[in-house]
Amino acid sequence: MDIHKANSRATSFAGAEYFTGSVMIDPIVSAPEPARVRALRVSFSPGARTNWHNHPLGQTLYVISGVGRIQKLGEAVQEILPGDTIWIAPGEKHWHGAAPDHAMCHIAIQEELEGKQADWLERVTDEEYQA
Amino acid sequence: MDIHKANSRATSFAGAEYFTGSVMIDPIVSAPEPARVRALRVSFSPGARTNWHNHPLGQTLYVISGVGRIQKLGEAVQEILPGDTIWIAPGEKHWHGAAPDHAMCHIAIQEELEGKQADWLERVTDEEYQA
Repeated sequence: MDIHKANSRATSFAGAEYFTGSVMIDPIVSAPEPARVRALRVSFSPGARTNWHNHPLGQTLYVISGVGRIQKLGEAVQEILPGDTIWIAPGEKHWHGAAPDHAMCHIAIQEELEGKQADWLERVTDEEYQA
Repeated sequence: MDIHKANSRATSFAGAEYFTGSVMIDPIVSAPEPARVRALRVSFSPGARTNWHNHPLGQTLYVISGVGRIQKLGEAVQEILPGDTIWIAPGEKHWHGAAPDHAMCHIAIQEELEGKQADWLERVTDEEYQA
């Protein structure tokens, strides 16, 4: 059993390659084989969001605080609030992030398949974000 | 993509078969195959705790609020606080719950293997809990 105290692992900043705006990441778990679950706490500044992406075994988001946005390709942008849970099926192209005037923090849970948790795609444009 | 709003799924009470004291459960995800991740938010009243148990593919706990306790068989009872993350390896016999005078809420994440998320064992006695 490994206990990681809240103050024992530093917050990191997400890379600009896959995110727009200021996004902070705190580790939760990267389970060793035969387990494959990965979890992170992700904190988006107002207006910040992921690139479009998808996950080989899907993704679950659990909103902790703030006001956020999420969009599946071909559907409308939707608002997400604390306590909301989102299941994104394997291969569904989507993005998520904060609302324009509110920060948003969620837990992201996904499973790794053949060394990969996500396929990262193009940036979410301002027009897409504000639609 | 499935969005479950915070007010769309009712809280349930955990069964007395596997828990001591009042424990409430809110669903997060039960991902369909080929995914296998399961997640719940679990809220323990002061003094409430799981039975001893283990998980075929391990478990991750992420403490959201309150003050809790956790013990791996053969080790001392340890305190857990908000922001703490615990990784419990496959097969490790353990229990977790609230402190005697504090509620505790955590997110529990585990993977299902052959239809099973946990092997439930005997009750945690008051002597074990207060050790």
